Amino acid sequence: MKVGFIGLGKMGEGMADSLIRAGHELTVYNRTASRADALVAKGAVLAADPAEACGGEVVITMVADDAALENVAFGERGILANLGEGAVHISASTISVALSQRLRDEHAKLNQHFVSSPVFGRPQVAAAGQLNVLVAGAADPVRRVMPLLEAMGQKVWPMGAEPHEANLVKLSGNFLILAAVEALAETIALLSKAGVDKHAFVDMMTNSLFASPIYKIYGPLLAQEKYEPPGFVAHLGLKDIRLALAAGESLRVPLPLGSLLRDKFLTLLASGGENLDVVALGRVAAEQSGQ
Amino acid sequence: MKVGFIGLGKMGEGMADSLIRAGHELTVYNRTASRADALVAKGAVLAADPAEACGGEVVITMVADDAALENVAFGERGILANLGEGAVHISASTISVALSQRLRDEHAKLNQHFVSSPVFGRPQVAAAGQLNVLVAGAADPVRRVMPLLEAMGQKVWPMGAEPHEANLVKLSGNFLILAAVEALAETIALLSKAGVDKHAFVDMMTNSLFASPIYKIYGPLLAQEKYEPPGFVAHLGLKDIRLALAAGESLRVPLPLGSLLRDKFLTLLASGGENLDVVALGRVAAEQSGQ
Amino acid sequence: MKVGFIGLGKMGEGMADSLIRAGHELTVYNRTASRADALVAKGAVLAADPAEACGGEVVITMVADDAALENVAFGERGILANLGEGAVHISASTISVALSQRLRDEHAKLNQHFVSSPVFGRPQVAAAGQLNVLVAGAADPVRRVMPLLEAMGQKVWPMGAEPHEANLVKLSGNFLILAAVEALAETIALLSKAGVDKHAFVDMMTNSLFASPIYKIYGPLLAQEKYEPPGFVAHLGLKDIRLALAAGESLRVPLPLGSLLRDKFLTLLASGGENLDVVALGRVAAEQSGQ
Amino acid sequence: MKVGFIGLGKMGEGMADSLIRAGHELTVYNRTASRADALVAKGAVLAADPAEACGGEVVITMVADDAALENVAFGERGILANLGEGAVHISASTISVALSQRLRDEHAKLNQHFVSSPVFGRPQVAAAGQLNVLVAGAADPVRRVMPLLEAMGQKVWPMGAEPHEANLVKLSGNFLILAAVEALAETIALLSKAGVDKHAFVDMMTNSLFASPIYKIYGPLLAQEKYEPPGFVAHLGLKDIRLALAAGESLRVPLPLGSLLRDKFLTLLASGGENLDVVALGRVAAEQSGQ
Repeated sequence: MKVGFIGLGKMGEGMADSLIRAGHELTVYNRTASRADALVAKGAVLAADPAEACGGEVVITMVADDAALENVAFGERGILANLGEGAVHISASTISVALSQRLRDEHAKLNQHFVSSPVFGRPQVAAAGQLNVLVAGAADPVRRVMPLLEAMGQKVWPMGAEPHEANLVKLSGNFLILAAVEALAETIALLSKAGVDKHAFVDMMTNSLFASPIYKIYGPLLAQEKYEPPGFVAHLGLKDIRLALAAGESLRVPLPLGSLLRDKFLTLLASGGENLDVVALGRVAAEQSGQ
Repeated sequence: MKVGFIGLGKMGEGMADSLIRAGHELTVYNRTASRADALVAKGAVLAADPAEACGGEVVITMVADDAALENVAFGERGILANLGEGAVHISASTISVALSQRLRDEHAKLNQHFVSSPVFGRPQVAAAGQLNVLVAGAADPVRRVMPLLEAMGQKVWPMGAEPHEANLVKLSGNFLILAAVEALAETIALLSKAGVDKHAFVDMMTNSLFASPIYKIYGPLLAQEKYEPPGFVAHLGLKDIRLALAAGESLRVPLPLGSLLRDKFLTLLASGGENLDVVALGRVAAEQSGQ
Repeated sequence: MKVGFIGLGKMGEGMADSLIRAGHELTVYNRTASRADALVAKGAVLAADPAEACGGEVVITMVADDAALENVAFGERGILANLGEGAVHISASTISVALSQRLRDEHAKLNQHFVSSPVFGRPQVAAAGQLNVLVAGAADPVRRVMPLLEAMGQKVWPMGAEPHEANLVKLSGNFLILAAVEALAETIALLSKAGVDKHAFVDMMTNSLFASPIYKIYGPLLAQEKYEPPGFVAHLGLKDIRLALAAGESLRVPLPLGSLLRDKFLTLLASGGENLDVVALGRVAAEQSGQ
Repeated sequence: MKVGFIGLGKMGEGMADSLIRAGHELTVYNRTASRADALVAKGAVLAADPAEACGGEVVITMVADDAALENVAFGERGILANLGEGAVHISASTISVALSQRLRDEHAKLNQHFVSSPVFGRPQVAAAGQLNVLVAGAADPVRRVMPLLEAMGQKVWPMGAEPHEANLVKLSGNFLILAAVEALAETIALLSKAGVDKHAFVDMMTNSLFASPIYKIYGPLLAQEKYEPPGFVAHLGLKDIRLALAAGESLRVPLPLGSLLRDKFLTLLASGGENLDVVALGRVAAEQSGQ
């Protein structure tokens, strides 16, 4: 398929690479063009702006947040103004429910399709084409883009006919991750102050009751106080919690654990932790207990 | 080994059974004597009171809470007054740090040993001898009782030389479990109110990022709103959080996620949920969002 | 002075009336024109749109929220496009820090002045010209409009040279009010369930340690469970907490008590309390304790 | 009347002095006897132990906490063993509901009376006989001791026929105080970081909406960051919240604002604030926002 790909950060690059390996024709765009070099060497065409990436049947966006997606979606050289009728915009970014709903509506007015397809996994998982890929949208466009989603992921998880449903599931998944980090942060603060070996605790938990990828990744990082380099950076952790809370507010669903996480992140960012990994919530728990 | 076993609830019965299968000689005591019938049929001797279970090298206690352990440990017919010099009391119950420290001190005065060995696992896991067994205490008694611990568990996890360290790890593990339940409860409340399929969400999460025993047990129960019969009963969930908070208070370690759980459990118990499973925290999250 | 007055809700009407009594010439605008009848009978001129209220030296806005103020401030027939050079826009509404900063900047570009002057007091206090009036803005325009502020209030409280400082003080004041309501709600839930006379408690507190207007107003309403008619309506209470939290987020200041209030309000609104008084937080506290 | 008075801390000394001024015959006891010197100079008799203070119709206790009251109440030389039949024990300390209920029961078994009479006010208010005095207990003994209560207070507030009701009201009052302190601490953190004059804010609030003794005392202390000398010391603030939470737990009433206060106090105490005034919660709010 002829596919445009917009957003070549650590995640996007690996995802685009998976598509090339699967034999698709890619036109790629990134604000900083040099990040496209490796993909171009593998046959991708470089676009000068989002519009030039909209010539095919599908355009995929993988950018940092709502503002970044608005930048490439709207305006004269943006996706909406340049995508063909019947073509599909797949949004893989972690964005708000509200923006997802707006894009669905705006694309529909132009007889374009909007499919939401956020992903779970870290950069090396993306590079290996082994992401967990959510998808939500109307049945026909979802069916058409399925080969692309399958090329990027080890598994594709359908989440409903409304694109924003996949966004809410993605936000909920990140909520579960951050809740697990906070729970580990608090228990490690307690055990450390009591003189218990936190490494033994994490080793025990992550090899028995909590033997899952998330705990195996974050548990040791917390015990080691390894806050850099960031895999899941703190300011994006705060952003995700904010989006979950905003969805909760419009639906009238309180999320007190989300409120707690928000307050902890604000303390982390207030003390210079903006660009640390989210496991630096462990530093906040240590400081608030005088350690 | 000649072993006394006190406390034949759902967990204790399976643990005692594992010890018999491993060839140990058991004298068992339970407040309601009839719960010992099956074990007696397999060769265990029935004790009329805790004292009669204290004739061997080791006595194991597996009771509901601090008060129950105090009942069998202290007094004229209790463990301390009747255990031999050099013998070992293994406490497998989930009790407070303070009681664990007190028992260590009281046993030491009488030249007895105290080893703390709380376990993770549900009744059927106990019956299969597949528990995860923590252990903390002085090196020599721990070494001596190791064959017993190994008979009850798939693995024994050493946690330090002070018995209470194992208790704090057990409380921390239960804290992680209840935090995971609350995180699932809140996200499911959010997704349900938004019309997203909660079963698909749980299926996705527990077969990818969170593919661990705890999430695989509790996730589906939450999605199914299956609050009975209780595996981990709500009033004991509150007790465990209370003990974690008490340990935190004496160490000056705030546990805000623990505070949140405590408040949620109080609401659950205030509305008749005392004997439901801890997953009924999902009912609280639903109600607090008008569902 | 020739003054435009936009927004004739319960508060605005009383404030406008105070200005007329003080001898000022008023041109008034309200979306629902009939609300202006009483003022017109006292000599006010009715404007057909915001623009027609911008012919004098000063225009005052007293509307419900950010969206309502944006509606009358921007656009072809809005305040910015129609106010004269050197004239002053006094915003008395409870709005966000961000909108206050934007209005300051937009007015400055047009050589107009922006003064922020939120008020404390209920409708009957506004009608009596006895409000507590905050003011923040550049010295010269503040000095010029002081007679108007004094006509509306028993006292004018200067809060700084930047308009948004008064907005932040107003949000902080409402935060204190709502925190007091929640504290009363929780203690009353505790006392009631224990069988203690809540009326005696409120009577004691509000005539000794807490003998201040806020406690004297809200304490008895809570004890009487008098949730209607609303003086301070729940959905505006949530709005004010949201604005305080948003200011805190951009400044990296966690407000955990604000987070708690937000979650309580969401539960209140989820169960149909949108248009009750904020004292209906007492109903939430009662329900969450099984009463 | 012949009155024993036990506990001559800053509060107790002033209360005892008020009783002497009103013409009552006092026998006083304090662990550190030298604190009684001034009262003895005014005519009080010094008791060598609690028993010696129990010779009259009434004994009043004003000690730090549950443990201190248990020390003077129980044992061979304690109040229960030495007070006459028909005599009254007035407890003025801030103690737990559970201990209050236990004392009621123990005194009743001995045909003695127990009246609970906690007080509000700081040491200089106690010295002036101007406290606000709560009282709860059976009608007859309350009537008999009323002249004593009136000698110590500007007003006596009846709270019910069960002594513990007054204790719960006292704990609720302290809860309201600490909630007000936390609300001020958070808003001051927000305003300070935004560059707003916190003194102007406190001045405005405490002279209008919140013109009550509590806000007038604590508001300026918070703005001035005046954490010493302590009037209401942090570790007793934590104790009072703990007692309120314990009462809530046994009644199944969640107090999330109490949970929040508990966590803040733990952070304060973890960083050396044990003996600061409770307004040092302001330091916690500042630190958690990077100030």
